[in-house]
Amino acid sequence: MWDNSILKCIDCGQEYDVGHVRYRCDCGGLLDVVHDLPMLGKRRLRDTFDARWGSRETPDNSGVWRYRELIVDAPVECIVSKPEGNTNLYPSAQIETYAGVQRMMLKHEGENPTASFKDRGMTCGVTAAHMLGCKTVACASTGNTSASLAAYAAIAGMQCLVFIPEGKIAYGKLSQALAYGARTIQIEGDFDTAMELVQKVCNEFNVYLLNSINPFRIEGQKAILFEILQQLDWEVPDWIVLPGGNLGNNTAVSKGLRELHQLGIISRMPRMAVIQAEGANPLYRTWKDHTTFAPMHADTIATAIKIGNPVSWKKSLRGLEWTDGVVEQVSEQ
Amino acid sequence: MWDNSILKCIDCGQEYDVGHVRYRCDCGGLLDVVHDLPMLGKRRLRDTFDARWGSRETPDNSGVWRYRELIVDAPVECIVSKPEGNTNLYPSAQIETYAGVQRMMLKHEGENPTASFKDRGMTCGVTAAHMLGCKTVACASTGNTSASLAAYAAIAGMQCLVFIPEGKIAYGKLSQALAYGARTIQIEGDFDTAMELVQKVCNEFNVYLLNSINPFRIEGQKAILFEILQQLDWEVPDWIVLPGGNLGNNTAVSKGLRELHQLGIISRMPRMAVIQAEGANPLYRTWKDHTTFAPMHADTIATAIKIGNPVSWKKSLRGLEWTDGVVEQVSEQ
Repeated sequence: MWDNSILKCIDCGQEYDVGHVRYRCDCGGLLDVVHDLPMLGKRRLRDTFDARWGSRETPDNSGVWRYRELIVDAPVECIVSKPEGNTNLYPSAQIETYAGVQRMMLKHEGENPTASFKDRGMTCGVTAAHMLGCKTVACASTGNTSASLAAYAAIAGMQCLVFIPEGKIAYGKLSQALAYGARTIQIEGDFDTAMELVQKVCNEFNVYLLNSINPFRIEGQKAILFEILQQLDWEVPDWIVLPGGNLGNNTAVSKGLRELHQLGIISRMPRMAVIQAEGANPLYRTWKDHTTFAPMHADTIATAIKIGNPVSWKKSLRGLEWTDGVVEQVSEQ
Repeated sequence: MWDNSILKCIDCGQEYDVGHVRYRCDCGGLLDVVHDLPMLGKRRLRDTFDARWGSRETPDNSGVWRYRELIVDAPVECIVSKPEGNTNLYPSAQIETYAGVQRMMLKHEGENPTASFKDRGMTCGVTAAHMLGCKTVACASTGNTSASLAAYAAIAGMQCLVFIPEGKIAYGKLSQALAYGARTIQIEGDFDTAMELVQKVCNEFNVYLLNSINPFRIEGQKAILFEILQQLDWEVPDWIVLPGGNLGNNTAVSKGLRELHQLGIISRMPRMAVIQAEGANPLYRTWKDHTTFAPMHADTIATAIKIGNPVSWKKSLRGLEWTDGVVEQVSEQ
C-alpha cells in the first residue's frame, strides 16, 4: 500500500509522509521513496510478478504496474496507466560481433506509448498527483517530458502546464503535448529560468511538479530494470549499460537492483556503466578524478543527454557504489 | 510448413509454388498466399497461439511469428525476427466520449521496432527472401518501408537497396535505413519511376522485391489483427477501423478475419471500415459509386496515406465484401 512507503532525504535521513506534497527535504537534499522491504520480503514478489506476466488486465498488463509493490503500491483504482512499458529486449548478433561480446541485448524504450522511457516515470508521477489530490500538473520541458506528462494528465482528466524556454522547442514533441490538451507557456529565458518559474507556480497554486526532481518518477523508471530482468527470467546480466544525461535512469536502475538484491529476488548485483558524451560529462569528471561534483556548460549533438547540471548526480554516485559501477565518456563520432 | 502454402492469383486462380520467386500471376493479377486451411483446421491453433502468449523465447515472443501457422510456416531457424509486434491496445475514455461509442481501443503500431507497422510485413518478407535464397533485397520508398526493410536485411546479413525518388525524402526515416547499412540510390524521377526501376533491377539481378506488391508482406500484416483479437481474448469487436492509403492493412485484416472464421477460431465476422483522406480517396469513390476503380492524383497532409493508385485496391474490394465493410472519407481538418 501507498502507506508502506515513506519519503526519505538522501543527505540527512529525515523522513516524510508520502501523503503530502513534497519535492525536497527541508535541508535541501533529494528525496527517495523508501519501501518497507522487511515487510515485502515476506511476500513472494517474484512469483507475483511472474503470475502477472502476459496479463491482459489493467494494471497487470502495464510494464510498470506489474511491479507495483516495489514502485508505488497505489490502490488499483487510483492508477493512471496507458498501459506503458512492455518494450522489447532485442538481441543483435551484429553489435555483439562489433563490440566483441558474447551476448548483448538492447532495450528499446522508444516503444513506450509517447515514444520514450519518460512514460514509465510519468504514469507513476501522475498517479502520485492523483493520490495527493492535485488537479493540475506541470513541468518545464522542451521535448519528451512534456509529451509524456500531457498524455498521462489527459487520462487522469488533469490540467497540464508546460513551461518552454524560448527558441528551444522540439516541434514534433510539442505537438504531442498540444494534441493531449496541455497548456504551453513560452517564457523569455533559458531552461533554468523556466524551471525556476514552474517551481514558483507549483508552490503557489497547488500545482504538482513533475520535473526530474520528483521522486516518484524515479520509482517508475525502475521498471525498465525490472522488466529487463523478468525478460531474462531473472538471470542477472554481467553489465547494465545506460546513457547518462540527467542521470535519472541510472539512479533508478541502481536503486531497483539494490532493492531486488535486498529482497533476495536476485542473488547477485550486476555492474552498471553510465556513458556520457564528452561534451556533457560532469558525472564522468567527478567519478574519474574523485573530485567534488561541478556543473558544466554542456555541448553535444546528442540533445537528450546535453545536460551540464544533472538533477540526480548525488543519487548517481551512490548508485555507482552499490553496483561497483563505472562511468565512461564517448566522442561525438 | 512453408510447403503447405501456395501462391494463387486473385483474378484467374492460377496456382504457383511458394518456393520460387514470383510477385504477380502470368495474367498480371495480384497473388495471395493461400494456406491449407482444411489441414490447419484439424489443429487447435487458438490453443497454440495462447500457449505462446507471453513467451520469452524466439520466435514465440514475436507478435507476428506467434501466429506463424497462418502467416508463413517457416522452419524456426529460417525466421528473421527482431522480434516485432506486441504493441499495446489502448483504451481511451476521452475518445469514447468524443465519438459517442461505448468501448473503443487504439492499436499503437508505432511501438514496433523501427516505429511502424511495416515491421510486421518485413519480418515476413525478409524471411521469405531468406527461404528463397536471395542475398539482396530492394524496395522503392521514401520512408517507413525503407527503414523497416533495412533493419530486417541487416539481421539476415543481406544487402539492402533503397530506390528514392528525388526530393521526396523523410530524412529521419532515411537515416534509419542508412544506419542499418542500406545502399540508397536516388533517382531522377517520381515514385512511379523509382518503382519501375527497382522492379527492373530485381528481375535482372536476382534481387528480391519487397514493395507492397509482395504477397508475404500482407501475410505478416495480418498479425495486427491476430494480436488485437488475442488481446481481446478472441472476443470479436463490432468494427475494425483502419486508415486506407496503399490498402495493405485492410487487405491483411480482411484476409486474416476470413481465415480465422473459416477455421472456427472466431464465430462471427466483425465489420471493417476503411477511412481515406478526401484528397486521396480512390477506394472511397469506387466503393460509394459502384464504379470501376480509377487512380487519381492524391493530395493530403496525411503523407502516409497520400496514394492515388494503391496496389491493393482489388484485394480491398474483396475484403469489403467479406466483412460487410464500408469506406469513409474525412477532411483534412
